[in-house]
Amino acid sequence: MSVICAISTPHGTGGIAVVRISGSGAVALAERLVGGRPLDRQLCFRRIDDLDDVVVSVFRAPHSYTGEDVVEISCHGSVYIQEELLRRLIDLGARLAEPGEFTRRAFVNGRMDLAQAEAVADLIAAQTRGEKDVALSQMRGSVSSELEHLREQLLTFTSLLELELDFADHEDLVFAERTAMSGLVHEVAQRIDALIDSFSTGQALRRGVQVAIVGAANAGKSTLLNALLGDERAIVSDIPGTTRDTVEDTLVIGGVLFRLIDTAGLRQTEDPVEQMGMQRSRKAVDKADIVVRVIDASAGEADGCCPADGGKHVVTVYNKADLLAPEDKRQEGGLYLSAKSGDVAALRDELLNHARLLLARQENCGTVVSSVRHYEALKTARQALENVMRGMDAGLGSELLAVDLHDCLDALGSVTGRITSDEVLGNIFSKFCIGK
Amino acid sequence: MSVICAISTPHGTGGIAVVRISGSGAVALAERLVGGRPLDRQLCFRRIDDLDDVVVSVFRAPHSYTGEDVVEISCHGSVYIQEELLRRLIDLGARLAEPGEFTRRAFVNGRMDLAQAEAVADLIAAQTRGEKDVALSQMRGSVSSELEHLREQLLTFTSLLELELDFADHEDLVFAERTAMSGLVHEVAQRIDALIDSFSTGQALRRGVQVAIVGAANAGKSTLLNALLGDERAIVSDIPGTTRDTVEDTLVIGGVLFRLIDTAGLRQTEDPVEQMGMQRSRKAVDKADIVVRVIDASAGEADGCCPADGGKHVVTVYNKADLLAPEDKRQEGGLYLSAKSGDVAALRDELLNHARLLLARQENCGTVVSSVRHYEALKTARQALENVMRGMDAGLGSELLAVDLHDCLDALGSVTGRITSDEVLGNIFSKFCIGK
Repeated sequence: MSVICAISTPHGTGGIAVVRISGSGAVALAERLVGGRPLDRQLCFRRIDDLDDVVVSVFRAPHSYTGEDVVEISCHGSVYIQEELLRRLIDLGARLAEPGEFTRRAFVNGRMDLAQAEAVADLIAAQTRGEKDVALSQMRGSVSSELEHLREQLLTFTSLLELELDFADHEDLVFAERTAMSGLVHEVAQRIDALIDSFSTGQALRRGVQVAIVGAANAGKSTLLNALLGDERAIVSDIPGTTRDTVEDTLVIGGVLFRLIDTAGLRQTEDPVEQMGMQRSRKAVDKADIVVRVIDASAGEADGCCPADGGKHVVTVYNKADLLAPEDKRQEGGLYLSAKSGDVAALRDELLNHARLLLARQENCGTVVSSVRHYEALKTARQALENVMRGMDAGLGSELLAVDLHDCLDALGSVTGRITSDEVLGNIFSKFCIGK
Repeated sequence: MSVICAISTPHGTGGIAVVRISGSGAVALAERLVGGRPLDRQLCFRRIDDLDDVVVSVFRAPHSYTGEDVVEISCHGSVYIQEELLRRLIDLGARLAEPGEFTRRAFVNGRMDLAQAEAVADLIAAQTRGEKDVALSQMRGSVSSELEHLREQLLTFTSLLELELDFADHEDLVFAERTAMSGLVHEVAQRIDALIDSFSTGQALRRGVQVAIVGAANAGKSTLLNALLGDERAIVSDIPGTTRDTVEDTLVIGGVLFRLIDTAGLRQTEDPVEQMGMQRSRKAVDKADIVVRVIDASAGEADGCCPADGGKHVVTVYNKADLLAPEDKRQEGGLYLSAKSGDVAALRDELLNHARLLLARQENCGTVVSSVRHYEALKTARQALENVMRGMDAGLGSELLAVDLHDCLDALGSVTGRITSDEVLGNIFSKFCIGK
């Protein structure tokens, strides 16, 4: 394949920058760039006559990231020098790499499968330990090996079914023993269910644990959000209805990323903008992993406007506790605090506890699915298995069962890229940064 | 020396990032970071269990940038991973490097002299070919070897003078032959003068060629600046006196950096703000390498308000030429154009021609001094030589001549860091980025 080149380090000026070259002929091209002397060691110091002193790393095919000859030029991190190196490489016959093209080549050359390649982009985008953990495990093959294992199990039975088709004249010949097959299909379906379930954990780790802050108008939700964030993110006033739209921000507590959503106060109103805001509030609650109910403790009884949802983690906060006499702080299972004072350490601890419960599943089941593409493929595979199970119950012939099994195999195979299209690849790699 | 570490690539997210470690024990420390396996090759792929897959480059002392053991860890360019690597290195006993500390160690360990070390920072900051050329040549030792050569020549005579002091009893003993010495001192003084002269070229290359745009109020100076820059940098109106302060921007033509200064129109005014602006205009003209005089061609004769300066490169522009009949474009040596139309190609060519004349000196004399510190040292050295010459003319004794010669040697030696203080080093390296 043609020789591609790109600046692989972050944009801008730094101590050093790295220009990466890959493709058949990359070493010869780099040798011409640095003045002709052979790059005969793994690390060579070279003087580019009128440009820079550089260190060149040489990775010979197939022992490289892309599986091709790869050369990395470590230069002084001047923007001028970085761009001039690229210009000269292009003059020598290389072309500028597209986003993700190095990783795409690694996939095409069998250095990693598609799920692993996708994880590279996730790893680069990782901002927290949680995100890094999920991406790293996927890059090292956790998702791939799990799905390949399921695929292989189904493949055996599918082959036996197809053998029956070859002997279609002998109707009584059954290679694929139906009871064993049913057992396996159920087992695989269960495993796929677990992976589908892990997606919400994966999303929580990748996008952050969604926390919706809800409560009656003027209960102090925005003040609480600001206290959590430690700055003036939301507009605060004592006029009920100040927050009309949902306000969102992120916060890292104990290595876990939280995505906080301040919602419009729930109350009767004729204002159409505020009504829209409340609709958004309800949606935010639906999506949330944790709901923080804020109650104005000084206003007496809870106002009961907070949606009850069995499956959610709910934290109840009695705000404005500074206005109460100590003996009034009597509600069990709630946190008494004053958002205005800024002391919300107890709430931060409580959020982290709930997040740990949410994320505990990951520790147990090991593999976490974090990609929407994988989630969809698993859903498709699961539906195909459902069809297989129903077909077996209905006593369908091997021909029809084989069709559904193939749908399932294709869906599972699409995750690792066994079955894929240029369009899917284009979509995946266009989200990469240039230089990786 | 203790082990230091830093992220050496530019800040932010990228395909890859490089963390650099230097010091005695750096390799052992890196081995612990990557799980204990020995780093026994120049390039090692390593899996850091719960963090990342990395490529480690090992440069053993003294064959490294700093002259110490240096390890570079090339990781995925996630900000989280970069910072986590640093955190772990610090936990293992390294400390965060100060700005420029790697280069400072390179200097301390004799891998480069001070002038070369300073050039590293210039090279990283280089934005144009011109800046890069000056920095690269200085980094490779052009300034250092030139000054060391001058220093050695003077040193011989100084030693001979000091020999005369040892034999002070024998007044008639003369080791340092005065005529030859006088010749040499004059020769060295001339060479130092040339280097001092080259400073303005160096400044032009480093900071850009200063271009002041001057002219009567409402001659169209700001419009011309905008046309050169190709955007709306300066506020334009047809009210005379719109530009009160000097407006500055940079422009690259043919690889040369220009620093354009739009000045307040020169006219009689009582407005104190405008008066201050005009004072600044005059200062801008004093500093400028090239002065562009803008004359409103449609207003008839040149208004004569432009300062005449023998030594400056002056380009005269007759603006608003679109309002003239062709036969009116009769002034010799001026460019007729319409800034409003945006077609200022002729002016761009003219600026480049003048810049080339300005910078031609560099091609001839080779070494260019671009650092204020070096300039000051050369001025001091030159003054000391002046004293030597005067002393010789006055027939001063070898003792007094030797004192002045030592002043000169010290000044020359301070450029390459033969004679230096911690304070000077602190000043120089604090201007570096972290990681270099």
